[in-house]
Amino acid sequence: MNLVSSDGLDKLRKALGERKVKTSLPDRKLYSYDATPIPIERKTPLAVVFPENKQDVIKLVEVCYEENIPVFPRGAGSGLTGGAVPTDERGVVVSFERMDKFTVDVDNATATVQPGVITADFQAYVEKLGLFYPPDPSSFKYSTIGGNVAENAGGPRCLKYGTTREYVLGLETVIKEGKVVRSGRPVLKDVAGYDITRLLVGSEGTLGLFTEITLKLIPRPKARKTALALFDDLKTVGKAVNAILLSGIFPSALEFMDEDAIRAVEQYKPSGLPKGAKALLLIELDGHPCAVEEELSEVRSLLESLGAKVKVAKDEEEEQRLWSVRKNLGPALSHLRSGKINEDIVVPRSYLPEVLPRIRDIAKKWGLLVVVFGHIGDGNLHVNLLYDKGNEEEERKAERAVDEVFELALRFNGSITGEHGVGLTKKKFLRWQFGDAGYELLLGIKRVFDPKNLFNPGKLIEI
Amino acid sequence: MNLVSSDGLDKLRKALGERKVKTSLPDRKLYSYDATPIPIERKTPLAVVFPENKQDVIKLVEVCYEENIPVFPRGAGSGLTGGAVPTDERGVVVSFERMDKFTVDVDNATATVQPGVITADFQAYVEKLGLFYPPDPSSFKYSTIGGNVAENAGGPRCLKYGTTREYVLGLETVIKEGKVVRSGRPVLKDVAGYDITRLLVGSEGTLGLFTEITLKLIPRPKARKTALALFDDLKTVGKAVNAILLSGIFPSALEFMDEDAIRAVEQYKPSGLPKGAKALLLIELDGHPCAVEEELSEVRSLLESLGAKVKVAKDEEEEQRLWSVRKNLGPALSHLRSGKINEDIVVPRSYLPEVLPRIRDIAKKWGLLVVVFGHIGDGNLHVNLLYDKGNEEEERKAERAVDEVFELALRFNGSITGEHGVGLTKKKFLRWQFGDAGYELLLGIKRVFDPKNLFNPGKLIEI
Repeated sequence: MNLVSSDGLDKLRKALGERKVKTSLPDRKLYSYDATPIPIERKTPLAVVFPENKQDVIKLVEVCYEENIPVFPRGAGSGLTGGAVPTDERGVVVSFERMDKFTVDVDNATATVQPGVITADFQAYVEKLGLFYPPDPSSFKYSTIGGNVAENAGGPRCLKYGTTREYVLGLETVIKEGKVVRSGRPVLKDVAGYDITRLLVGSEGTLGLFTEITLKLIPRPKARKTALALFDDLKTVGKAVNAILLSGIFPSALEFMDEDAIRAVEQYKPSGLPKGAKALLLIELDGHPCAVEEELSEVRSLLESLGAKVKVAKDEEEEQRLWSVRKNLGPALSHLRSGKINEDIVVPRSYLPEVLPRIRDIAKKWGLLVVVFGHIGDGNLHVNLLYDKGNEEEERKAERAVDEVFELALRFNGSITGEHGVGLTKKKFLRWQFGDAGYELLLGIKRVFDPKNLFNPGKLIEI
Repeated sequence: MNLVSSDGLDKLRKALGERKVKTSLPDRKLYSYDATPIPIERKTPLAVVFPENKQDVIKLVEVCYEENIPVFPRGAGSGLTGGAVPTDERGVVVSFERMDKFTVDVDNATATVQPGVITADFQAYVEKLGLFYPPDPSSFKYSTIGGNVAENAGGPRCLKYGTTREYVLGLETVIKEGKVVRSGRPVLKDVAGYDITRLLVGSEGTLGLFTEITLKLIPRPKARKTALALFDDLKTVGKAVNAILLSGIFPSALEFMDEDAIRAVEQYKPSGLPKGAKALLLIELDGHPCAVEEELSEVRSLLESLGAKVKVAKDEEEEQRLWSVRKNLGPALSHLRSGKINEDIVVPRSYLPEVLPRIRDIAKKWGLLVVVFGHIGDGNLHVNLLYDKGNEEEERKAERAVDEVFELALRFNGSITGEHGVGLTKKKFLRWQFGDAGYELLLGIKRVFDPKNLFNPGKLIEI
């Protein structure tokens, strides 16, 4: 049922021009999906809007605010929690794919980026200039900077380099009634007023639409090396991680895989990893060539003194082979079962030896296969619950198991999400994480930016 | 005139105990000052309250919210914009000096800190454990972590390591009616809900009172070296800074002094710097010993190829001698004139050669002496306008010159403050920097946290 007056759609067409407002059923269906692996509330929107510049975004928000049309902003739709999915058939999806320009200010090591720029394209460009934009969500080859900012995207490099938030210096955002807010400045320090910029980072499209993003760039590290370590027990992994960090070494990635993950990858594409290994660490170091070299041998002796078996990549080819173990994990898991819920809880990393067996217990209780990997340096665990797609009983079990995994994370002073955001799938846990007084603040902030609840309604919080 | 019912004070005494509520005139006077160098609105408060734990803070906010008593939180009073100064004689100053405990979780490289902990004490402690807490405001020897968080304090190391914000993982905050909000988690990644933690960082005590701060620590760099470079013209400085950063070198400090600053220091304590030098850079590198060594020689050849004269410290003693040039600047300026307004504008660093002459023009126009130094890597300039204390005409001129300096910063896409905050002294410029729509958001946020406008009223924004 279409509840919107055709007035609204007409106004949108008039304001933006026909070619920026698509209403064919295939278009509307195509833009109603994202990468969320579990069943979610998903509606076919009234239209898909393709703004080409800031003025388009202002006009579209003006019309939507006048006509009470919900607005569902969308980057590449690679999100895993339903953030880009329309939940109201009276709403429009706003795709930023035509706003994909950027400029780099080399002298100031900053960049001005439109929301639809593809993360990988931007990264490749700045690296050619000797600069570096570290945030590396696993979807970076197709995800957009706008989506990354809206979700505060992270990835393996976060331990050393921080999340997207640390690279956003300023934002131009269209809020209620089409008003434009400029927050931040293209400088590294700006303490004027409340930090609207970082409040908007990670707000999942519920406070407004970005039209311009100012990013910080840093010098590109000159060298990068990888080592792989295998462990006989879990406790040693935690010790190893601490030993590395406390020796003054700051790896650019510290990736972890549990024994089931190792087994899954070996079954899928054997790479000669020993079968009995309880855990695997991939350690990447970057920086000055001589430091990387020396630190690598320090890491090696540290790990070996703890009983780990260590392999250091001699060249780029070997490096890619080591990383392929981690990169084959996704396909390996799909090979095991057709369905996969990949959750991304975080716990302080020292709790890992306690938390991991408990995750296995949850999986056992629900009769599910669970595989855990993640970014151990920052305590971010990807808990993969595997099930057969179409087997509704297993799907339901997996969903209930996920609830228990979230409870576990909160009980261990962690968070329900380190990377994927809240979206639709984790909404019910947010009040628990924030408490009543904190949740009231979230609601209050939402009302300040979007009193009509038209920006990505139904996501992140319950109004 | 005391407008508060004695009820309020009685209730505070009853709730907290006599020894935590001081009302003698010397105490009230003593706690009504901060380090702001210009005349500001300053009132003698009704009382000074000394909470000793979270419960005390909750009780005091409960009473104050019931009795409409303004609350002026105070760290060490080292702020430069009036942030800790009471502006209402019906209010109470809350000093956190008795809440000075902290614990370090070495395994997770985090710390739990009460707001009254002295920054330098905390830094020294974690460094002994092989860890590092980088934020280094120049007041770090006496400033408190609570104050640093409230102001989002920065310092020379910000270029490489970021400001206080980048190290705050979580906060426990008492807001309106004594409600307690826990935001963030002791983990590096947490993208659940709006980023209340970073919204509170830099909120200058206007949204609530911190009772616990969770900080991120990083591995302590193993080596540190300093070089000093002298330049014949300003443009080369900018080129030199970019050349260093684009060669993949990330200095831990890049301090700049203009020719007047060099001259002032040489007059005060001669260290053999040549008289004709137009600019000086102090470059500090830290990290792995071999990288520091190699990078230092790279930096040296880079600078020399641009015509700079470079001196590298051979040992710690020489290093301290190089830094003394920068550290003697404060006393040197007091020696020149009795009064000093030290403003901290930020501009994108490439604008420096354009902005600096304009600052001199402003000083000339008002007949004032101006000395500029700062953290050039992040474009943060300390503009020191010197005048004779007690000479009211000069004081007024200095204040008007400062206004023009702020206008200049905003015109060059910069900010009115990189480190010191808004407080009382920069309030009138905030609307300009944010625009009407942005300012409305600030007001809306303030109302959500503090509808009665009792937390540090009169600071940052105009209600």
